[in-house]
Amino acid sequence: MQLNDLIDHLPAGAVLTDPDLLASYRQDRALDPDAGTALAVVRPRTTADVATTLRWAGAHGVPVVPRGAGSGLSGGATALDGGIVLSTELMRDIAVDPVTRTAVVQPGLFNAEVKQAAAAHGLWYPPDPSSFEFCSIGGNAATNAGGLCCVKYGVTTDYILGLEVVLADGCVVRLGGPRLKDSAGLSLTKLFVGSEGALGVISELTLRLLPAQPPQSTVVASFATLPAATDAILAITGALRPSMLEFMDDIAINAVEDEMRMGLDRSAAAMLVARSDAPGAFAAEEAAVMAQACERAGATEVFTTDDQDEGEAFTAARRFAIPAVERKGPLLLEDVGVPLPRLADLVTGIADIARRRDVLVSVIAHAGDGNTHPLIVHDPADADNTARAHQAFGEIMDLAISLGGTITGEHGVGRLKKAWLPDQVGPDVMALTRRIKDALDPLGILNPGAVL
Amino acid sequence: MQLNDLIDHLPAGAVLTDPDLLASYRQDRALDPDAGTALAVVRPRTTADVATTLRWAGAHGVPVVPRGAGSGLSGGATALDGGIVLSTELMRDIAVDPVTRTAVVQPGLFNAEVKQAAAAHGLWYPPDPSSFEFCSIGGNAATNAGGLCCVKYGVTTDYILGLEVVLADGCVVRLGGPRLKDSAGLSLTKLFVGSEGALGVISELTLRLLPAQPPQSTVVASFATLPAATDAILAITGALRPSMLEFMDDIAINAVEDEMRMGLDRSAAAMLVARSDAPGAFAAEEAAVMAQACERAGATEVFTTDDQDEGEAFTAARRFAIPAVERKGPLLLEDVGVPLPRLADLVTGIADIARRRDVLVSVIAHAGDGNTHPLIVHDPADADNTARAHQAFGEIMDLAISLGGTITGEHGVGRLKKAWLPDQVGPDVMALTRRIKDALDPLGILNPGAVL
Repeated sequence: MQLNDLIDHLPAGAVLTDPDLLASYRQDRALDPDAGTALAVVRPRTTADVATTLRWAGAHGVPVVPRGAGSGLSGGATALDGGIVLSTELMRDIAVDPVTRTAVVQPGLFNAEVKQAAAAHGLWYPPDPSSFEFCSIGGNAATNAGGLCCVKYGVTTDYILGLEVVLADGCVVRLGGPRLKDSAGLSLTKLFVGSEGALGVISELTLRLLPAQPPQSTVVASFATLPAATDAILAITGALRPSMLEFMDDIAINAVEDEMRMGLDRSAAAMLVARSDAPGAFAAEEAAVMAQACERAGATEVFTTDDQDEGEAFTAARRFAIPAVERKGPLLLEDVGVPLPRLADLVTGIADIARRRDVLVSVIAHAGDGNTHPLIVHDPADADNTARAHQAFGEIMDLAISLGGTITGEHGVGRLKKAWLPDQVGPDVMALTRRIKDALDPLGILNPGAVL
Repeated sequence: MQLNDLIDHLPAGAVLTDPDLLASYRQDRALDPDAGTALAVVRPRTTADVATTLRWAGAHGVPVVPRGAGSGLSGGATALDGGIVLSTELMRDIAVDPVTRTAVVQPGLFNAEVKQAAAAHGLWYPPDPSSFEFCSIGGNAATNAGGLCCVKYGVTTDYILGLEVVLADGCVVRLGGPRLKDSAGLSLTKLFVGSEGALGVISELTLRLLPAQPPQSTVVASFATLPAATDAILAITGALRPSMLEFMDDIAINAVEDEMRMGLDRSAAAMLVARSDAPGAFAAEEAAVMAQACERAGATEVFTTDDQDEGEAFTAARRFAIPAVERKGPLLLEDVGVPLPRLADLVTGIADIARRRDVLVSVIAHAGDGNTHPLIVHDPADADNTARAHQAFGEIMDLAISLGGTITGEHGVGRLKKAWLPDQVGPDVMALTRRIKDALDPLGILNPGAVL
């Protein structure tokens, strides 16, 4: 059988075929209902093993679904019947160079582990998806992941100086490197960031690091109405660049308070958590400016702290919002973003959709960059409720597009959002995308069905 | 004649055919000796006119060389016999949105004009090529241009949120937009940045802006030896993130002093100009740290100032180094970069090459990011000297490659450096580049001979 040929060419144990194990690799966190079951899961430890796998797949026309930690929220790592899942979870080397402030990393390391390795040298890898403790750096690159600090520090692509990529035919290319400036040839490094495994498999990353983040001052503000909260967001971002500016609606506030008992204002319509990491006393000064902006916008309660643990606790509360709301039922998780002045329209429009479709939708947001995560709670046992939830899921993306926004700010398109991609970017950009896909993966073996 | 067909489809005056005018569009600042003469220069004012031009060019198989302000230093805008030069110089609209901190710009505006328009709203467009007063923002995007502040603030690609691009077939695509986060589809915006007109013509840019830069403190230090200066560079970048860290060798110091009479130390082997824009008193604190690093590395003279005009004067002196050295004779202008720890090897290796080839080479550098500009002075009337200058030109790129560096940090490959690109990136990356080029420009009409 052809799979034995692959098994023979890889180290012992690299290929899993046990049905129970295969079942555990069917889905990522998006729980794609259309997931298949792979022929095998391949867990390479080296770039050479990745190349061997892709050459074999090309020779036999077998689709390959690359997978990092399986924490994706768009079905980018959904297994396909008869395909291979190529998991990078065992590729976990890292080398930090404090002189060039760079790290060379294999893709399977968790984001949090990259942060820890950098911190051991007094350095900082900024991008911080809420899932940072269990998402892989390779997956972060494949989706151009974001996070909470991105409002000031940018997203994953801003920290990728170089990539090693295994192409569809097994050819290994090195792109960019530990240089802050490089204009030699096309921007191929950047092309593979956010390509969701559809153009190649990222087998190594060269990351840019920053000096350690200074201590942060934190503002927590509650609002009786959504417009008051969105007014405060615009006032803050118009005045300065916060290091974090997060939003939770009433459903999220109460869901978090149910679990964490932090004394959040359960009666509020919305809550903001804003932070400043300006140096020295400027953090407190910026926090005061943000607190004043919240008060002027009509905040019912404003709390400011320079205590690091206290600030971190409120940040953790915001990060915990998704699992907290998930206690109410399975979620359809959105990732829509709009230009900041349209944030109020997006938030009120989502409330309208929830009302019209009679479904529970909680909105949390990286408010400072206009990136929201509407969480649509549904009941899989209730077919009608589930149908309405899916209608709302699509309508929220339609709304974001109509407001000049995006269907995904940081999670990627995967399989769950691809039906909406043409509506956002139009047929000409889809055709351009297809041309590049066909040029790089003429046999179509790389993550077929994702993005395109 | 087929050109009349194009003239008929464009506004009156958009197509120039006067031989004197055509002659003035033969070369960019690289003065490519192999430049041809275009059939016509087309100066569109609108995206539709760009599309008309490309459709016509495709139909008739006429090559199109896109050109911004003609300030390129790599021959990216060298005219081709029988081709069209498509100059974006009349596309000069700009709209700044202070709420989203973005600007929508046509490609022909000068970098300095973008900065001015942003400053009118208290905002800042950071990338600052030394040519910022006479280089176009479209050309900056096409070359992924850098500058002096990039050591802290990154390069052009870091500030491009969206592009409108006219493809080879005249199709107009809009990529990205005024959103800080967008993971929808491939990273096509980034692919066109740095593509040097070989994949499409950039007809509009959406730029990310920052709040105005704080006042800067400035350190000027002189060194008796090159190793002392490179030691100081590593000590500074290891301690903090300067907002500028520039290097000039003895030839550049003396050439600038000849013209500007600033009291620079003519006996020094090297001079550094370092700046900090940390907020408030932190700028002076960081300047003190940088001054101390210079003293410890053995600086013979260290001068620190918080005066903005004085700091700007030293920055202007550094920017003036290229024209000042040019008084000695025509330059072959390099743009090689290395990982910072190899900077000393690069600088001493360049001195070796200059000695061996008996040519005058002055080195100036954006030292903080390892990006140097060796300036090779030559005498076109002296064939032997010119031949040796060209030998040195190639050997310096070979040296940078051998040190893990790049042949171009911020100017682009154009035509003058393309022979070295395969040595830097290797045959597999060249093949990948070719596949993308062929997919996007199957007729090969877009800037043929540049990059590839």
